[in-house]
Amino acid sequence: MADTSWADSAKSLKGVILDMCGVLYDSGEGGGVPIPGSVEAVKRLKASDLQLRFCTNETQATREKFVAKLQRMGFDISVSEVFSPAPAAVAVLKERGLRPHLLVYDGLVPEFDSVDKTSPNCVVIADAADNFSYHNLNEAFRVLIGLEKPVLFSLGKGRYYKETDGLKLDVGVYMKALEYACDVEAEVIGKPASVFFQSVLNDMGIQPHEALMIGDDLVNDVGGAQHCGMKGVQVRTGKYRPSDERHPTVTADGTVDNLAQAVDMILSQRGH
Amino acid sequence: MADTSWADSAKSLKGVILDMCGVLYDSGEGGGVPIPGSVEAVKRLKASDLQLRFCTNETQATREKFVAKLQRMGFDISVSEVFSPAPAAVAVLKERGLRPHLLVYDGLVPEFDSVDKTSPNCVVIADAADNFSYHNLNEAFRVLIGLEKPVLFSLGKGRYYKETDGLKLDVGVYMKALEYACDVEAEVIGKPASVFFQSVLNDMGIQPHEALMIGDDLVNDVGGAQHCGMKGVQVRTGKYRPSDERHPTVTADGTVDNLAQAVDMILSQRGH
Repeated sequence: MADTSWADSAKSLKGVILDMCGVLYDSGEGGGVPIPGSVEAVKRLKASDLQLRFCTNETQATREKFVAKLQRMGFDISVSEVFSPAPAAVAVLKERGLRPHLLVYDGLVPEFDSVDKTSPNCVVIADAADNFSYHNLNEAFRVLIGLEKPVLFSLGKGRYYKETDGLKLDVGVYMKALEYACDVEAEVIGKPASVFFQSVLNDMGIQPHEALMIGDDLVNDVGGAQHCGMKGVQVRTGKYRPSDERHPTVTADGTVDNLAQAVDMILSQRGH
Repeated sequence: MADTSWADSAKSLKGVILDMCGVLYDSGEGGGVPIPGSVEAVKRLKASDLQLRFCTNETQATREKFVAKLQRMGFDISVSEVFSPAPAAVAVLKERGLRPHLLVYDGLVPEFDSVDKTSPNCVVIADAADNFSYHNLNEAFRVLIGLEKPVLFSLGKGRYYKETDGLKLDVGVYMKALEYACDVEAEVIGKPASVFFQSVLNDMGIQPHEALMIGDDLVNDVGGAQHCGMKGVQVRTGKYRPSDERHPTVTADGTVDNLAQAVDMILSQRGH
């Protein structure tokens, strides 16, 4: 029996933010598969009077290619509704006049086409998977250690994620590696950074207490959203682990079996 | 002009411990080259009434092959005088009945020949250089995260070292990566762990205040030795950087241009 107290406040909601991988679909070979009921759940939210945005730390493809993949799975999603770290990073780099050395997945590189990358004065890392070779990590390290004041950006800080063939190390692990190597603290762009969630709220034109975040990552989705003043609900899909429900520092406002159940509860509270 | 106050106490010394890479030789292609004056300096120490041991975090080869390399460079060194992390790790593994998954340089694997490695219940990492691929780090991660209580050993915790073609990331960086991924704290075997220095002192049968450590790594050689009660002197060769002389937490008892100068100062104090 799901705890339903969080849903009592659903009447005052104005917007919902959904994490994508692990909530809408499970990633893996061939791009992944939708989680049962989630295509329909997105459709129902879109038909309601709630605003809807998607917030992902996905960095293995450009936002355009990533959204096209979700559309092929049957999701009604457009690029302008999706917030991901790379476009946010590009904005920061341009604002501060920084020229990045990139250590990212090949598919993400085109996001940085408009950024000057000659004689780099900072390093940007994202989930690079097999590109996280010793050679490439050394290269990023040498750029950083050669700077008078090393600047390191990390697109997300996840520990690991789940693919259909098992757990894989995420960017946060390599962020910690370079932080230690160069004695610097990385600037995280993406969840759980408050500035990232705030940009989504700004786009909807609503206040934190009027928004609900739904994700499978207790720390980065739920904790990040709560830290920003939103409510956060965790789904028992994706990277969810039973031990999340007794986590020492983060307690979700609610835990539901999946997105379909969360949407049921929200919409029934609102009389849909 | 070198600061000479540390050498005043050279009269009461009974033993000297030398770091190897960056003090005796510079590593690099073809095995490396001796640092000028160091072959002769080792010879002079051996001819004195001081005991002499070598203490290294070298983990790219077995101790036998490593010592043979130094002998080819002209150093008068035998295997029994050299303390390195792998044999110390083997002793710990056997004592605690642990079966390691190894993420190490290919050349180091034979050190673990006598250890049972079936169905691993711990992970041992050492400087693995190109073996630090995404695939291999994932494999080590999956072993750890699959254990009820993950146990991680790191042979040293250096940030980086210098080869003739530039700086290279060291094992400590990957230790931090796995610590973050699995939320564990690694057990460090090798410098700067006090237990490692103490084993060298035990072998000489002397007290910490009767021994002097000479190394190029301010934190792991000098700081580690001082923490153990010894004096620590840094050489301005190897990975030495001028900023070491204004380090926020570690201050060497003395800084000398190279090993030859250190030995000159010690032996002249002792009337040689």
